[in-house]
Amino acid sequence: MSPKLDFLDDVWYCGALGEELGDVPLGRTICGQPIVLFRTAAGAVAALEDRCSHRQAPLSLGRLTGDTLQCGYHGFTFAANGTCTHIPRQRGIPGGAAIKAYTAVERWGLVWLWFGAGAADIDRIPALPWTTEADRRCVYMRYEVAANFQLMADNLMDVSHTDFLHATTIGSKTAAPGTEDDATIELDCRVVGDRVHFVRRVRDTLLGPVATLWAGSDKRVDRTNTLMWEPPNTIHSVLEFRNDETHRTIHLDHIMTPATETTMHYFMPWTRDFGLENVDYMTDDDVRREQNLVIAGDDIPMVEAQQRNIERFGHVMDVPTQQDRLVLTVHRVLAGLFRERGLNVPSELQRIGRAAPG
Amino acid sequence: MSPKLDFLDDVWYCGALGEELGDVPLGRTICGQPIVLFRTAAGAVAALEDRCSHRQAPLSLGRLTGDTLQCGYHGFTFAANGTCTHIPRQRGIPGGAAIKAYTAVERWGLVWLWFGAGAADIDRIPALPWTTEADRRCVYMRYEVAANFQLMADNLMDVSHTDFLHATTIGSKTAAPGTEDDATIELDCRVVGDRVHFVRRVRDTLLGPVATLWAGSDKRVDRTNTLMWEPPNTIHSVLEFRNDETHRTIHLDHIMTPATETTMHYFMPWTRDFGLENVDYMTDDDVRREQNLVIAGDDIPMVEAQQRNIERFGHVMDVPTQQDRLVLTVHRVLAGLFRERGLNVPSELQRIGRAAPG
Amino acid sequence: MSPKLDFLDDVWYCGALGEELGDVPLGRTICGQPIVLFRTAAGAVAALEDRCSHRQAPLSLGRLTGDTLQCGYHGFTFAANGTCTHIPRQRGIPGGAAIKAYTAVERWGLVWLWFGAGAADIDRIPALPWTTEADRRCVYMRYEVAANFQLMADNLMDVSHTDFLHATTIGSKTAAPGTEDDATIELDCRVVGDRVHFVRRVRDTLLGPVATLWAGSDKRVDRTNTLMWEPPNTIHSVLEFRNDETHRTIHLDHIMTPATETTMHYFMPWTRDFGLENVDYMTDDDVRREQNLVIAGDDIPMVEAQQRNIERFGHVMDVPTQQDRLVLTVHRVLAGLFRERGLNVPSELQRIGRAAPG
Repeated sequence: MSPKLDFLDDVWYCGALGEELGDVPLGRTICGQPIVLFRTAAGAVAALEDRCSHRQAPLSLGRLTGDTLQCGYHGFTFAANGTCTHIPRQRGIPGGAAIKAYTAVERWGLVWLWFGAGAADIDRIPALPWTTEADRRCVYMRYEVAANFQLMADNLMDVSHTDFLHATTIGSKTAAPGTEDDATIELDCRVVGDRVHFVRRVRDTLLGPVATLWAGSDKRVDRTNTLMWEPPNTIHSVLEFRNDETHRTIHLDHIMTPATETTMHYFMPWTRDFGLENVDYMTDDDVRREQNLVIAGDDIPMVEAQQRNIERFGHVMDVPTQQDRLVLTVHRVLAGLFRERGLNVPSELQRIGRAAPG
Repeated sequence: MSPKLDFLDDVWYCGALGEELGDVPLGRTICGQPIVLFRTAAGAVAALEDRCSHRQAPLSLGRLTGDTLQCGYHGFTFAANGTCTHIPRQRGIPGGAAIKAYTAVERWGLVWLWFGAGAADIDRIPALPWTTEADRRCVYMRYEVAANFQLMADNLMDVSHTDFLHATTIGSKTAAPGTEDDATIELDCRVVGDRVHFVRRVRDTLLGPVATLWAGSDKRVDRTNTLMWEPPNTIHSVLEFRNDETHRTIHLDHIMTPATETTMHYFMPWTRDFGLENVDYMTDDDVRREQNLVIAGDDIPMVEAQQRNIERFGHVMDVPTQQDRLVLTVHRVLAGLFRERGLNVPSELQRIGRAAPG
Repeated sequence: MSPKLDFLDDVWYCGALGEELGDVPLGRTICGQPIVLFRTAAGAVAALEDRCSHRQAPLSLGRLTGDTLQCGYHGFTFAANGTCTHIPRQRGIPGGAAIKAYTAVERWGLVWLWFGAGAADIDRIPALPWTTEADRRCVYMRYEVAANFQLMADNLMDVSHTDFLHATTIGSKTAAPGTEDDATIELDCRVVGDRVHFVRRVRDTLLGPVATLWAGSDKRVDRTNTLMWEPPNTIHSVLEFRNDETHRTIHLDHIMTPATETTMHYFMPWTRDFGLENVDYMTDDDVRREQNLVIAGDDIPMVEAQQRNIERFGHVMDVPTQQDRLVLTVHRVLAGLFRERGLNVPSELQRIGRAAPG
């Protein structure tokens, strides 16, 4: 058994991109549970525990047979609700042959899972309407990261990392000590219910090479980053670039799902309001290549190194900065949700002390 | 130290193919013991613990020097009985320099080890006389599998997996739910002492592509699979294909030896009564290629995935089918042998509940 | 946290070759501590714990900014003394932002670290004056070894391994049992304070192929190996080859530093008094190639296999020989240093029983 993973179970977790579910079943550990995801003949998504009740072979090594999933070992067959519907060369299904089924729903091009005991409310699935709007174009990406899912959320919420970790890509410029961009930065942070809203405006700034391509202008621009966090760890980020010659908007939705205590699935719909014809820059392939450069090249190695270092250095505490206001706010809201449900607050939410005086 | 492995010690375990022992010593973990196997100048096989008593260098990194094995680090030399016979540049051998020797015997082209305290009875070595008969031809194969050795034994004894796991190779045909071959299947199972005999007859069946080649006929055949299991986990399987135009017999001996609790060595002599001239199909290379396709391509990945899933899902119980009669019978016999000797019954023998009513 | 590593802290440990510290910081685990090493603009060496106090990102993924080291994640900047000197876009440094600094000194082309609480005495750094003498030429090498650092020290001190482990390279010749070189061997071993001196003279011996090249003569030579061990585990070895037509001297300094309980860094300055022009044999590349053959090809695999075997066989004791006199003497001296300081004596120093009677 994997070590126990504390997680909120009355929220929706993204388990896969819709486009990942095709002709073969997909095995994936989600919130510590080994799960097999598949699509029925009718196109509906389904999720079962990833084991055959016969001899524990993973059903993800099986095959799709119409609306059922057949084990690849001895042919037990299961419906989307977990019922065992067929055992080869045998009449009758023994008691205990059914397996656990999970509530699974496809929305906004993503497959969402509900682990709670109570009724699943599909209206609580994070909304991503821009992904399907006619005047926008969305590319779906997925990354696997060997770190607790909070560390990637924190990465995204402390936007100040951009100038350092992404200095040569999407940062404003390389910021040696004392030489930071003198652009004016405004921060605004607001909690509404379980959601945290944050705006970071940098006026009249120079952009790094990739961000220049995104903005469609190599002049100084006003760059606004509007973020909305919602539990368990989804961050809707809207990037807006604006000056005399350009006005462009990009939606980056960062949807993080725990695989285990120290690994995560990271799903990212990336929606632009330009390059819709997908011919010249920016094409879908440009998006994938650039994001791979930034996420897989910069962020993932850093966050994974951070995870290993937390394990190496044990219980040392983090020292927060004024830039950590959003991170601290989200930690506070999220820790509150664990406490309200009588759950242990994960250690990743308790690493940072009091915010530094502003 | 490796975790404790419970195993019957008054039976013979196959440790190597005879052809594996040549000019260099062979290090292998067998029943949890790190062992070095070698062949003396006279051709006898020998087995010692795989450590030099001087500084614990593995003797398997040493060299053969006539009838002795010399450590490759500082030259300590050991006889087949474990005695230290030579220390370079020193007169006299200190007390405690001898190491443990194991009883090793070569028979039927295989090297057998005895771990028991009592006298080793070579007549109890599993008999494979067909491997040396003049009108047959034997090919020896070995596989390493990352699963408890019982899982591969169970694989072999539940022949019903053939139509699913080997659908595209040696199975009868792909069996979608409700479309199984309508051939008549007869099962017969009999326990004689510590041995379990089993016959599975499929009359008038179509064969998959590889089995068609084996049978030497693409018409419907009667296919008989006669199995004899004996402890600790050897399965003698005889495949017989018969119709108007063909009658062929293949002996597949599956000899499984635990390496550790979750790994095994799998030895397989494969003896045919056709293709003896080794020129056209079937040649020895054909046998090796086909077996590699089936065992390494189908069985090993499934059994290893099953092992990992058992570890992931913990103490969930298996649900047996009517096809599991042979597996359940063998588990019962084997568990009895453990109990008779006052040993703990391995958990792999306690996973399956009562047989489903027939 | 790594498992606790007992080590003497009032001695100098080599942490890096000087030539390893260039334009980027270097992360390395030394004596169980994750450390980042770097060189300031002025050329001084510095060592800090390898974590940013902000969010625990490794500083070894950061960048050098003049005399400071800047974290690559959010830009915290640290001086060589561990002080946090800059936080981007923030006035004031919060308490607790400083990190631990280690005393680091560059000498003899090597970077030395002091972990003790007391004052560091740079005169106690092992002296290697030959590395900088005008009539010699030094090549610096480094190896990473997955074994406790004592096992490599023991390897070097029991010179008798040369004829077996290095039979085809630097050994005198292949020594089958009873056929050892009949050359006269003299041993001499002397303890002076914390240091152990040892001489091994082999008169009128034949050399293996590589040693023949080193000696510059394919005739029989007198081969003298003078060793001096000093704590924690540095071995200064001087090889001298002499006959009618040659007289050559090579200094091999073996400097071993624990990384963890079961891994080590192995630094080796290799200084010759011939081939100074670096054109024909011997060139620096010849040295690197030959040492790689011997150390990486022979010694490291054996010592790593020994480490694994010690773990596999548990608490079995070693059986010493008359050749182990130097090893046993060093173990006794080193164990004494641990006892004097009230520290646990490492198990590697307690594996060998009493010396065999001479």
